[in-house]
Amino acid sequence: MTAPQFKKIVIFGAGLIGGSFALALRKANAVGEVVGFGRSETTLQQAMQLGIIDRIGQDAAAEVGDADLILLATPVGQMAEIMARIAPHLGALTLITDGGSTKSDVVAAVYAQLGSKVAQFVPAHPIAGAEKSGAGAAQADLYVGKKVVLTPLPENSAESVARVRQAWELCGAVVSELTPQQHDAVFAAVSHLPHLLSFALVHDLAQRDNRDLLLSFAASGFRDFTRIAASSPEMWRDICLANREALLQELQLYIAELTQMSAALAAGDAARLEQTFRTARELRAGWTEQ
Amino acid sequence: MTAPQFKKIVIFGAGLIGGSFALALRKANAVGEVVGFGRSETTLQQAMQLGIIDRIGQDAAAEVGDADLILLATPVGQMAEIMARIAPHLGALTLITDGGSTKSDVVAAVYAQLGSKVAQFVPAHPIAGAEKSGAGAAQADLYVGKKVVLTPLPENSAESVARVRQAWELCGAVVSELTPQQHDAVFAAVSHLPHLLSFALVHDLAQRDNRDLLLSFAASGFRDFTRIAASSPEMWRDICLANREALLQELQLYIAELTQMSAALAAGDAARLEQTFRTARELRAGWTEQ
Repeated sequence: MTAPQFKKIVIFGAGLIGGSFALALRKANAVGEVVGFGRSETTLQQAMQLGIIDRIGQDAAAEVGDADLILLATPVGQMAEIMARIAPHLGALTLITDGGSTKSDVVAAVYAQLGSKVAQFVPAHPIAGAEKSGAGAAQADLYVGKKVVLTPLPENSAESVARVRQAWELCGAVVSELTPQQHDAVFAAVSHLPHLLSFALVHDLAQRDNRDLLLSFAASGFRDFTRIAASSPEMWRDICLANREALLQELQLYIAELTQMSAALAAGDAARLEQTFRTARELRAGWTEQ
Repeated sequence: MTAPQFKKIVIFGAGLIGGSFALALRKANAVGEVVGFGRSETTLQQAMQLGIIDRIGQDAAAEVGDADLILLATPVGQMAEIMARIAPHLGALTLITDGGSTKSDVVAAVYAQLGSKVAQFVPAHPIAGAEKSGAGAAQADLYVGKKVVLTPLPENSAESVARVRQAWELCGAVVSELTPQQHDAVFAAVSHLPHLLSFALVHDLAQRDNRDLLLSFAASGFRDFTRIAASSPEMWRDICLANREALLQELQLYIAELTQMSAALAAGDAARLEQTFRTARELRAGWTEQ
């Protein structure tokens, strides 16, 4: 029997993202011991019972020195405080990665908190469904076939990036790399903006006196377009603020696009409308989720 | 054996909407003879083979005088010409309905073309999926449980409205009534605007040099939000132009909503963003397609 690739991992946050990471590495026989930290004692107890973690950590300073890998799987807003707490105690060979869905803000926290140990942090964004949450939703195959985007820092060694990539690949993920700025620009366009637009449409209708009448005639197009408007308000508030600059830029481009469509509509420009719709349809019909 | 409710119906357009109407009335034993007209001889031949129509009509003037019911199931843009052609020959008891997804324009054509016979036209909008089209897609149960909105005219008698309602109910539809203006305002908000917004997002991305990179990271939120951007460009060009006034008004309200969200985002107003998202989520999470 060979030794596991990671003798000890420490996860902060034992919910869907952190719990599934631990379960996946266990299933791959890639981990020795898993220690869990978190704000909720109930979640940690549940994570113990579900076999996600071996122990509930009591003292982060004492646990991170001999860890091979640390995963920050809390909301992004809590990560800076955790980084500050563990920074002085990190072992020389300990690597850190995270599960945050925005990256520029995580990277800013890394530079602010980790000092000389910046090179040990390899940021990551696993693109995995967030409809459910909590330890009870964690599953060993959550990441199988899913995308994980690493946004390595200039300070990271090739070996550190390769080792963090290995961890996510052992979870079954398809790993790619972008810069943190590329990452945030891409996700502003294809994820954050659509969420904002969907929230905006439903909020707009919610203000109307006749909203019940309107909704009684809404059908499948509305259903799909607004599915993401039922997402978590807190989580999306944080994502929008964390990726504010890129999202504002996308929003301005989109408002400009709508203004042009409005002008074409007001002018009765049939050819322009049809060409716009046709360009969209060709791109969308030719796209399949990878 | 009782006589069928409709001894003879004439359908203009034997595709999904018209063909399904005929098949449904046949299945309900509610129709004697079905005569079909259309631009495409191939479609009419196919409709014959599929048992949708009994005969291909040769001379509309000769067929509409003794028809109980006429359905206009062509694109809305072709309806005025058909109305002009049949108006002089309509029997005194012949009723007409239609399957157009906009109503103000159909009603305008009715007033322009039918003269003293306006009262015989009871406009309708069946809310039934349009992913497929053609006679081959027609099915007897297309309308079962689906909504059909009648937009009666002041000139229609209660009996005429009741008889057209009966026809759609025999198809299995759930029939409601709105004024043509209410109809177009409602559908501008819950259907036409979302389609325009979805087309706009994909068109916006299609202009980018890095569109392939962007689309490679698009996931399930994008998939659902943009599903309707793969809709027919010609059909949506026509719907947008036909419902131009109501749609322009919705578009202006939506741009104002986005401008407010943009301001909240630029100001870092977390509370405002969260409240907006929460209002949307509560409405959307509490809604189920009827």
